[in-house]
Amino acid sequence: MKDLFCEPFPSNSWLLPLDFPLTKQFDGFNQGNSRCYGKMLKDKAVNYSTNSVPSYVYLHVAHDYDAEDKLFFCDDDQSLLSKVPWLVMRTDNYFVPSLFLITAFEQELEKMFPEKATVFHYLGQYLFHPTNAVWGLITRYHQTYLAHADESLGVQVRVFDPRPGPFKHVMDQIRSCTLNQNLLPRVDVKASGFTSSKKNPKSTAILVTSLKLDYSDDLRSMYWEHPTSNGEVVGVYQPSHEEFQQTEKRMHNRKAWAEMYLLSLTDNLVTSAWSTFGYVAQGLGGMKPWILVKTENDTVPDPPCRLAMSMEPCFHAPPLYDCKEKRGTDTGAQVPHVKHCEDVSWGVKVIDPGHDEL
Amino acid sequence: MKDLFCEPFPSNSWLLPLDFPLTKQFDGFNQGNSRCYGKMLKDKAVNYSTNSVPSYVYLHVAHDYDAEDKLFFCDDDQSLLSKVPWLVMRTDNYFVPSLFLITAFEQELEKMFPEKATVFHYLGQYLFHPTNAVWGLITRYHQTYLAHADESLGVQVRVFDPRPGPFKHVMDQIRSCTLNQNLLPRVDVKASGFTSSKKNPKSTAILVTSLKLDYSDDLRSMYWEHPTSNGEVVGVYQPSHEEFQQTEKRMHNRKAWAEMYLLSLTDNLVTSAWSTFGYVAQGLGGMKPWILVKTENDTVPDPPCRLAMSMEPCFHAPPLYDCKEKRGTDTGAQVPHVKHCEDVSWGVKVIDPGHDEL
Ligand SMILES: Nc1nc2c(ncn2[C@@H]2O[C@H](COP(=O)(O)OP(=O)(O)O)[C@@H](O)[C@H]2O)c(=O)[nH]1
Ligand SMILES: Nc1nc2c(ncn2[C@@H]2O[C@H](COP(=O)(O)OP(=O)(O)O)[C@@H](O)[C@H]2O)c(=O)[nH]1
Repeated sequence: MKDLFCEPFPSNSWLLPLDFPLTKQFDGFNQGNSRCYGKMLKDKAVNYSTNSVPSYVYLHVAHDYDAEDKLFFCDDDQSLLSKVPWLVMRTDNYFVPSLFLITAFEQELEKMFPEKATVFHYLGQYLFHPTNAVWGLITRYHQTYLAHADESLGVQVRVFDPRPGPFKHVMDQIRSCTLNQNLLPRVDVKASGFTSSKKNPKSTAILVTSLKLDYSDDLRSMYWEHPTSNGEVVGVYQPSHEEFQQTEKRMHNRKAWAEMYLLSLTDNLVTSAWSTFGYVAQGLGGMKPWILVKTENDTVPDPPCRLAMSMEPCFHAPPLYDCKEKRGTDTGAQVPHVKHCEDVSWGVKVIDPGHDEL
Repeated sequence: MKDLFCEPFPSNSWLLPLDFPLTKQFDGFNQGNSRCYGKMLKDKAVNYSTNSVPSYVYLHVAHDYDAEDKLFFCDDDQSLLSKVPWLVMRTDNYFVPSLFLITAFEQELEKMFPEKATVFHYLGQYLFHPTNAVWGLITRYHQTYLAHADESLGVQVRVFDPRPGPFKHVMDQIRSCTLNQNLLPRVDVKASGFTSSKKNPKSTAILVTSLKLDYSDDLRSMYWEHPTSNGEVVGVYQPSHEEFQQTEKRMHNRKAWAEMYLLSLTDNLVTSAWSTFGYVAQGLGGMKPWILVKTENDTVPDPPCRLAMSMEPCFHAPPLYDCKEKRGTDTGAQVPHVKHCEDVSWGVKVIDPGHDEL
């Protein structure tokens, strides 16, 4: 954390002090732990009425949480948990959308975010400040490769496929999305000569982020091998190709964070379905991205990409439970500002109610 | 040829007419052919005195030519060959340096090239004009990636090694050559933050050409991960990474030719030992390159690179024969303007006599 983020709260720290008493127990906190709220519910160790509450409770709100863990999102449980002095939570999901379904939080959220679909945008800009090391990567890359272009387009490529790839249908999807939505000029495929370009034609810089090089290679050769039909100049840039996730390596994580930030600086953004990498970029940049929806059986979907309803990230593992009725429900249809995501059909995200459904 | 080069001679063609009578025999021309000059000498079928000469003779001047074939470079043989109406030559070597050792050509060469070490530079600029297809590749790449930099450095990387690579010692050699010779600014390895760069600092674009990406990747990350000590900005660009030679593919050859031409446009040039790819770039660009001399047992040589004595290419397979004395000789020591090459010790190249030997 210290290597990537600055302290967001002046003269304070968002990191636990080194002598924080519970730290030693963190490794033991999992769904089987007696202080895990879901476990306590299973063991009937929770008494909603009495005022005697434990000094700390572990909340398991990760993608593999079970029915009991999910009760975290119910009003009764929230009122009880609000009495517990310390809540230790482990999560790997952006569960904000489900907070909007808890009546107790409604007013508070209304006051904090009058425009509902700005939660991540504001929280992100308030909390996530790159350290000097990461800021150096951001500024050097931007100044060297992106600053001189008139316009920039971010293309965030993330392929969730066990096969090694590269995948032609993903290249085709990126091409048709960017061309169909006029995010990029068309090339004159028949021509290979050169058009005597105007003095200084409009220039676009495409920032591609991906673990592999194949997709930026494809775009770069397209614009190298053929002139654009309108004489515009298009350059393609990719900061790194780490080949695979290497989260244990410091520089790998710095580059990932720098690339998300660089994507957030672009004028337009194309992201990959399912990817939190893309969510962070759109959120920080305050942009509704064009999402390359997941392809089925290696074909380019039609349309190849969809404009996101809002700039909010998608909650991939929402609870589908109606606390009051105590039975399953479609949490994507309960309120007008929490809908199913464009890329993950069972996921939910916050949108601006005024937004007309696609 | 037609796909890569324009016709250099106005209202004329340097290509044989389609109905040229000998064309059908070209495939048969090899060192065993009865019309091969070397073979004729072996068969004692050459009579220096009489005036009856064959209508055509095949000259095998490729790297695998033998002692008899090499007699092409002797005055007596030249005077005889000058009477043969048609000479059909196959070669894969820049044999110009050995022409400078033939007395019959001395005056002519003196008149054509008063400054001796400009043969390829002038011939190249006169003969090699990229077709529109190649010109499109050159202009689009230059305009998109190289034109906005204040200065450009070409780095031509060619590794003749059966092992797959990449080779760290080659990366280290490139780094130390460019840094030691002040072709590139040093980076502040300890620092990883950022120096508040001056308004618009000097920018350098490095054009790397190579079949692999590893070497430009190394340079790019060096300048991405650390600030330069003088605040300068350095971008690294590589037009293609074809992975292996694919001479049968049209676009591959177009890109190779475009990249040689792009290298010739840079302000300074670093080339790889032994490589004709580099020779063409330095010749067309009229530049004396810094040559990355061949490494022994995977170590960086000291010095890592040597400034070429002239911009001329090296003749890799010169004859080492004294025609008059009829015995072996060091053709790199016969005249002051034909010396052994910096990269291929047995090779010879034309230099300006005034040039002080390194
Ligand atoms: N540098 C870089 N790292 C990436 C990229 N895509 C994925 N990664 C790495 O893979 C990790 C997984 O991505 P994650 O954050 O889980 O987002 P998601 O997997 O796309 O939802 C990232 O944290 C990075 O370490 C990329 O385009 N560039
Ligand atoms: N596009 C491209 N092709 C290259 C490069 N290096 C070598 N090649 C290919 O490999 C061939 C062999 O190079 P050649 O012309 O024989 O020069 P040499 O082998 O370096 O002496 C070239 O004609 C190209 O087809 C490079 O940097 N870029």
